[in-house]
Amino acid sequence: MPPSTLRRPTKTTKVTKHTKRAKATNAPKVTKAPKAVRAAKATKALKPTKAPAKGVRGPMSSAPKSGKMVFYFGRTKCEGKAEQKLLLGGKGANLADMTSIGLPVPPGFTITTDTCARYYTEGRRLPKGLLDEVRGHIATLEKELGKKLGDMRNPLLVSVRSGAAVSMPGMMDTVLNLGLNDLVVLGLAEATGNRRFAFDAFRRLINMFGDVVMGVDHHHFEREFDAIKTKYGAASDTDVPTVGLEELCFAYKRVYREHVGEEFPQDPMKQLELSIEAVFKSWNGDRAISYRNINDIKGLNGTAVNVQAMAYGNMGDDSGTGVAFTRDPSTGENIFYGEFLVNAQGEDVVAGIRTPRPISEMDDWMPAVYKQLLKVRSTLEKHYKDMQDIEFTVEKGKLFMLQTRNGKRTGTAAVRVAVEMVKEKLIDEKTALKRIPAGDLTQLLLPSFQAKDTAGVTVLTKGIGASPGAATGKLAFTAAEAVERARAGEQVLLVRKETSPEDVEGMHKAVGILTSTGGKTSHAAVVAVGWGKCCVVGAGELSMDTEAGTMTVAGRTFGRQDVLSIDGTTGEVMLGSVTRTVPESLGGDFATIMQWADRHARMKVRTNADTPADARRAREFGAVGIGLCRTEHMFFEGDRIKAVRQMILASDRDDRESAIAKLLPFQREDFVGIFTAMDGYPVTVRLLDPPLHEFVPHEHAQQEELAQEAGVPVSEVKRRVAQLHEHNPMLGHRGCRLAVTYPEILVMQVRAIVEATLHCLEQGIDAQPEIMIPLVGTRRELASLRDLTARTIAEVCAERGVKAPKIPIGTMIEIPRAAVTADEIAEAAEFFSFGTNDLTQMTFGFSRDDIGSFLPAYIVKGLLDKDPFQSIDQDGVGQLVRMACVKGRQAREKLKLGVCGEHGGDPASIRFFGSCGLDYVSCSPFRVPVARLAAAQAAMA
Amino acid sequence: MPPSTLRRPTKTTKVTKHTKRAKATNAPKVTKAPKAVRAAKATKALKPTKAPAKGVRGPMSSAPKSGKMVFYFGRTKCEGKAEQKLLLGGKGANLADMTSIGLPVPPGFTITTDTCARYYTEGRRLPKGLLDEVRGHIATLEKELGKKLGDMRNPLLVSVRSGAAVSMPGMMDTVLNLGLNDLVVLGLAEATGNRRFAFDAFRRLINMFGDVVMGVDHHHFEREFDAIKTKYGAASDTDVPTVGLEELCFAYKRVYREHVGEEFPQDPMKQLELSIEAVFKSWNGDRAISYRNINDIKGLNGTAVNVQAMAYGNMGDDSGTGVAFTRDPSTGENIFYGEFLVNAQGEDVVAGIRTPRPISEMDDWMPAVYKQLLKVRSTLEKHYKDMQDIEFTVEKGKLFMLQTRNGKRTGTAAVRVAVEMVKEKLIDEKTALKRIPAGDLTQLLLPSFQAKDTAGVTVLTKGIGASPGAATGKLAFTAAEAVERARAGEQVLLVRKETSPEDVEGMHKAVGILTSTGGKTSHAAVVAVGWGKCCVVGAGELSMDTEAGTMTVAGRTFGRQDVLSIDGTTGEVMLGSVTRTVPESLGGDFATIMQWADRHARMKVRTNADTPADARRAREFGAVGIGLCRTEHMFFEGDRIKAVRQMILASDRDDRESAIAKLLPFQREDFVGIFTAMDGYPVTVRLLDPPLHEFVPHEHAQQEELAQEAGVPVSEVKRRVAQLHEHNPMLGHRGCRLAVTYPEILVMQVRAIVEATLHCLEQGIDAQPEIMIPLVGTRRELASLRDLTARTIAEVCAERGVKAPKIPIGTMIEIPRAAVTADEIAEAAEFFSFGTNDLTQMTFGFSRDDIGSFLPAYIVKGLLDKDPFQSIDQDGVGQLVRMACVKGRQAREKLKLGVCGEHGGDPASIRFFGSCGLDYVSCSPFRVPVARLAAAQAAMA
Repeated sequence: MPPSTLRRPTKTTKVTKHTKRAKATNAPKVTKAPKAVRAAKATKALKPTKAPAKGVRGPMSSAPKSGKMVFYFGRTKCEGKAEQKLLLGGKGANLADMTSIGLPVPPGFTITTDTCARYYTEGRRLPKGLLDEVRGHIATLEKELGKKLGDMRNPLLVSVRSGAAVSMPGMMDTVLNLGLNDLVVLGLAEATGNRRFAFDAFRRLINMFGDVVMGVDHHHFEREFDAIKTKYGAASDTDVPTVGLEELCFAYKRVYREHVGEEFPQDPMKQLELSIEAVFKSWNGDRAISYRNINDIKGLNGTAVNVQAMAYGNMGDDSGTGVAFTRDPSTGENIFYGEFLVNAQGEDVVAGIRTPRPISEMDDWMPAVYKQLLKVRSTLEKHYKDMQDIEFTVEKGKLFMLQTRNGKRTGTAAVRVAVEMVKEKLIDEKTALKRIPAGDLTQLLLPSFQAKDTAGVTVLTKGIGASPGAATGKLAFTAAEAVERARAGEQVLLVRKETSPEDVEGMHKAVGILTSTGGKTSHAAVVAVGWGKCCVVGAGELSMDTEAGTMTVAGRTFGRQDVLSIDGTTGEVMLGSVTRTVPESLGGDFATIMQWADRHARMKVRTNADTPADARRAREFGAVGIGLCRTEHMFFEGDRIKAVRQMILASDRDDRESAIAKLLPFQREDFVGIFTAMDGYPVTVRLLDPPLHEFVPHEHAQQEELAQEAGVPVSEVKRRVAQLHEHNPMLGHRGCRLAVTYPEILVMQVRAIVEATLHCLEQGIDAQPEIMIPLVGTRRELASLRDLTARTIAEVCAERGVKAPKIPIGTMIEIPRAAVTADEIAEAAEFFSFGTNDLTQMTFGFSRDDIGSFLPAYIVKGLLDKDPFQSIDQDGVGQLVRMACVKGRQAREKLKLGVCGEHGGDPASIRFFGSCGLDYVSCSPFRVPVARLAAAQAAMA
Repeated sequence: MPPSTLRRPTKTTKVTKHTKRAKATNAPKVTKAPKAVRAAKATKALKPTKAPAKGVRGPMSSAPKSGKMVFYFGRTKCEGKAEQKLLLGGKGANLADMTSIGLPVPPGFTITTDTCARYYTEGRRLPKGLLDEVRGHIATLEKELGKKLGDMRNPLLVSVRSGAAVSMPGMMDTVLNLGLNDLVVLGLAEATGNRRFAFDAFRRLINMFGDVVMGVDHHHFEREFDAIKTKYGAASDTDVPTVGLEELCFAYKRVYREHVGEEFPQDPMKQLELSIEAVFKSWNGDRAISYRNINDIKGLNGTAVNVQAMAYGNMGDDSGTGVAFTRDPSTGENIFYGEFLVNAQGEDVVAGIRTPRPISEMDDWMPAVYKQLLKVRSTLEKHYKDMQDIEFTVEKGKLFMLQTRNGKRTGTAAVRVAVEMVKEKLIDEKTALKRIPAGDLTQLLLPSFQAKDTAGVTVLTKGIGASPGAATGKLAFTAAEAVERARAGEQVLLVRKETSPEDVEGMHKAVGILTSTGGKTSHAAVVAVGWGKCCVVGAGELSMDTEAGTMTVAGRTFGRQDVLSIDGTTGEVMLGSVTRTVPESLGGDFATIMQWADRHARMKVRTNADTPADARRAREFGAVGIGLCRTEHMFFEGDRIKAVRQMILASDRDDRESAIAKLLPFQREDFVGIFTAMDGYPVTVRLLDPPLHEFVPHEHAQQEELAQEAGVPVSEVKRRVAQLHEHNPMLGHRGCRLAVTYPEILVMQVRAIVEATLHCLEQGIDAQPEIMIPLVGTRRELASLRDLTARTIAEVCAERGVKAPKIPIGTMIEIPRAAVTADEIAEAAEFFSFGTNDLTQMTFGFSRDDIGSFLPAYIVKGLLDKDPFQSIDQDGVGQLVRMACVKGRQAREKLKLGVCGEHGGDPASIRFFGSCGLDYVSCSPFRVPVARLAAAQAAMA
């Protein structure tokens, strides 16, 4: 098992404690936390507490009490509890919890957040008696471990870490190896028989202590290290010989003295005292205060300080380190799964310099420790009732648990683990449902490149994985080409700079879509996600010559006959054909979970589908209706686009009506197909929505063609196209505004719906159309169009002499004005469907197509937690949704409420919609299982 | 006095009763109300009443009572009251009121709305006893007038009109001359000695009765009339000889018989009965129901029916007709002002076929009637306490008042009338303030072309009057040209297809702006309104050749040396130089009104100004601060734009900072100028707002120039320009998003503000800057930028070793999300300024630049009452404003609230803002007096 495999399932690079340690000193810091000592300059007072911070459980912290200041965790005693996060900080509470269930955690103690508050209320002085308490706990620690702080032969070394109730950048970094000094380092060298290890640990301590505690700029240390490396001709840190490290410690102490004005403290207790105070000071550093302000974190007293014994896996052949999962995180199988390295530190496992051994081989190496570890495994699963991801170190035959947390897992594993844990009676059905990250279900539904397939594959470039899946095909450079070659039986990848609605047919026919611009919410991405079609966007290194039919990347040029593969999850663009794994059938555990989900869900799950094929696929995935059937896609196919363009070019109403009349039979046929596919379930048809300029050609050749067809000069076509241009098409002439200015389009569409319905009913098909009027902003607008719709329905039925079937007429709520006046709007609407894409655009003032230039900065700077187009902004956009639900139902008690924006497939958003009382969510076919599970989770929230 | 003069002041075409009559029968109807008889088919039930309709005063109408069904108005008795609008309808209540104050109104009676309701509850039958009551009132009428219904020698003729409490299209049209039949017409001919008049009246009755009451399609009558005209070679109706009209009556009766299936009713009571029932039926016609639905009109029982005696001014030389104002509507002078025509009908006065005589000459013609009219004048002013606009008819020496209403007047007249009426003790100060339409004050402030100046002027074309005023100048075709020639002392009109921010300097230097595209909210219009500069936009007939320096219109081509004039009120583009009238100084009555206004206003009035000149002008108009100082305009002037473009082209932060550094001294100087001009008053500076692409050149020549200056290839400039392109720039990378991605711009601007402030304070100038961060959507965004702003302020002050002056930091509320989360936002803001332009764009989903294609249809169809960019949409956008005020003040009690969108100068909007508790409004300098008056009106509302 190669080192990379273990960490593969979650695709996150894991930073272990040891790795952090390495990073803390080796990597140059570009942006770093302000130094604790400088932080002391900050004079800003604590803001008055108002409400408990987000994520903070338990009662609100009150004024600091003058009671117990330090809580011990260890074999001897464990004074803290998992629930005391507010008092002990997140890290402290966690260490106490692990200890209390009998895990062999390196012992230590936590100084409470109240003590930090007292530090400030008592004039920035360590509270009286604190150091005595600390000394007492150190003594317990020494006794428990049989080591002694400052003892040359058997030294106790500790780490000091900050830890508030909420994790917070800007707080003090970790200080490791505390307790070393000029003498102890020698003892350590001797005790371990590893002089290099000892001096490496010491130079790290001086550096960290100087930098983090005393505010000496890191680059002063860096400069010394560079000099040593030059001296020994060492390319990297690890090439420096032991003597070099000894020289380095000497140089570091000089740097320390020069910048701090006194010697590096040799007294371990002094080191500890200064470190504790530095942690307290960092609580009111500029960056921490700013972070709390910006993130509205209130109600916290201060930070806790964690002092913990160090444990080393590199002390000889009776030492080692490893990582493991209590079950297989990739498949979910109930086996102990992991790997270890003898005489190594944590980072060695991840770094891959040495090949770790499978965890089962520990039985050969140290059977007792392995047995102990297996027991830990069982304890953990019983305690946390979930699969755990653990890190451990064996120091001289003694096992230490460094960390345990719920293990990340693939969607497949999540399903299996959940179902099996129910069988094992570890958890109940509801817990099982809650446990599975709903979004991960897509992994079970889409083909993907498996790790073993991608070995030896050439990755040409990497874009943004916009729609998961795996696709391999020959390159097609225009939509028309893709359509033609796909019809001829070729598997083609459509490669474009960006896509537009004109490309839709070609996109549909291609096996995958690759663009060089755009983000996750670009046209290509959104359309592809809707179809569950593999798509990579924003691969900026691609350069395309559409006319020549070539694409250049990484210095190589590809033509129409070249085959590439794209991974819609990772965004990788690969050379040649890569084997794909097609998902298994959706039976077994997956079916069990879906069954449980439907049993517990309150909201129904519909799908967004515009074609019978999509509708059928969504039914297979369990959709119970269509929540959004867009009609514009229907306008692009085949000969229809010609009639649409004639309609747009029409110089008067008569011309327009005759063009529209040509569309009627097509539309009717479309609806017959969809109603048939959704037999027995409702189908919400949205009337024409996009601005008309999306239907006209923007390239000269196509404009000429259109001019010829329409029998008008090309200048006329160009004039009309120019006239249709808008500065902000998103806020322009579209949606129901089209129906206001061209009512004949609405009449044709409604007629097609009614005629299709009557046709279906005659055939014994239970067609249940609902007519949805988009982009409504005012009650009058809706009332007037509803009137016209109702009259058209009545007219068609009267023509045929049949009783009008019940066809609810409703609207989308996607304009902020519609949300705030939902009570008025509801008077004219039998249902609302929230169009949260547009609602987000307008509520935030964010154009989906343009956020690429600033949204990344917002995420990086923490001004937004996530892209509001991916997951609904509950505080802002969500507030409007909730308001519209309440007002709408006030005006019309039985108002049906749904959502059809892309948020309808996002689990967090679905949970929110559940809390608003929505009747259903609607999402793309491939998200239906996700939504079913999320709906169940919402019902249990 | 030419006929047109009297109606000139208000520029509205006045439709008198007589004109309406003429229109009702002569003009072909393009869209017409559905016929009352067809309306009977409508089966839709009345919606349950919920709330009284808009505009309906008094208690809600309850179920129909079985009491009195008919209310008489006349000399004998007057049973109705002005307040009984709900029972008698608007028209009925008005007729009763006029009668009750002793005006000689043609007598008649009103059948109540309750009776209409009973008509429906009693199965669509006229309630029992109604016709008896009607007959009784007809008898009173006959007695009062000494005429008799159906009497050949002295016939009583009446009109029948519908009249609900709210005026409502779709209700039954008027039927006039009711009472005529084959015999009575002959008697009328003899009695009047005017056979033509009698048969003309009769053919109108048959037509109207057939069409409106019995549902015979108008075109059947039209066809007959055409045949008669052909027969007599008559070009128009009036050319048909008397005998032709007699033949026409015969033919009309045939048409009636053929389509109705029975003879035209000869019995006047039968005519009346059918007409009354037709009015009732029209209440539930499709169009009326649809109108009530769309306009949310509820709480009405039905329509009233008004039956009123006819009065004719064309019965000989002792008859006549006239229109008059109780004071001069143009100047406000307290003189009786009007004109009359002997032996004429009302439409003759307006039509201008004969020249009317001044009203004073009535004294010569009929001294007694004139004396009576003067008494009416005085009665009216005492009763209505306002200047009245009256219509009267003299029938055989007897005066009849046909209408009185508050007279429209010019702004000048409004001010004078109000001030003088206070002096006359007719009204008090508050009433005077309420009385003046605040918006009309602009008429006193801007130069204009007076009627007498425009006689003989050639109007080349008409665009949209976007910014009032009058301007004459030579044509300049580019902004650069305008700047250059204006510097050389020329008066130039800038003529452009459309303008962009690059043109701002040229626009400023021109005396007026004329564009061939765009609407009232286009860039040109908005900028011009801000400066009070005359501007005409959307003059679509203009065709410009910018390179050649020519403009073609109406077949003529004009060059750089040609002089044109534009009227920013009417939109007229005129040949040559037209004399302008410059307004008088703002003293006298105007000053009195302003003084009174300030005494009663609660809200302060600030101005939107970007330059010291604008600031000074606004101070003269009474502004007490700047509510919006845009900084982007400052970026366009002179050499600055170069630095701005360098900043945009910068490839890294260093380059960018060095370009920005060049801007600092300019910005500082700008602020010193503005703070000095506003000495002692607050100045709210908005940080950079527009998207960066507005600053880069889009034409090749300019791009090359920039490339040379910046020392980069032109391809790089093009690349960057293309990169800055956005699909929806309105929702793109602008506002505070610029500060998030380029914090160095914010830092420079804040530094400039602080340095300018400190400089001013040193000079003894009381600079009071407020820093406003635009386009904020989230609390975190604002908190983070506020942080940076505060730190920069502290830094600059620390550098100089001075105590930081108090500089409030606030934000614009212009994004819906900011409004709904205003409580959170307020935590980081010391003030809110509502940017209602953008807030309207996003709340409605309307792009100001693109509404031209659909907004007109919305207004025409009654889906919107008015352009929401002109006057705030109180129900939707206003709801967000109100919510933000409440939430904002909940979070921060002393939060200062203002508005700086263009709505800040709109009286109706100002009234609304007053009700929300805003502290100030801010508007363009020229709107300041308007806003001061509107603020007073708001306080009294």
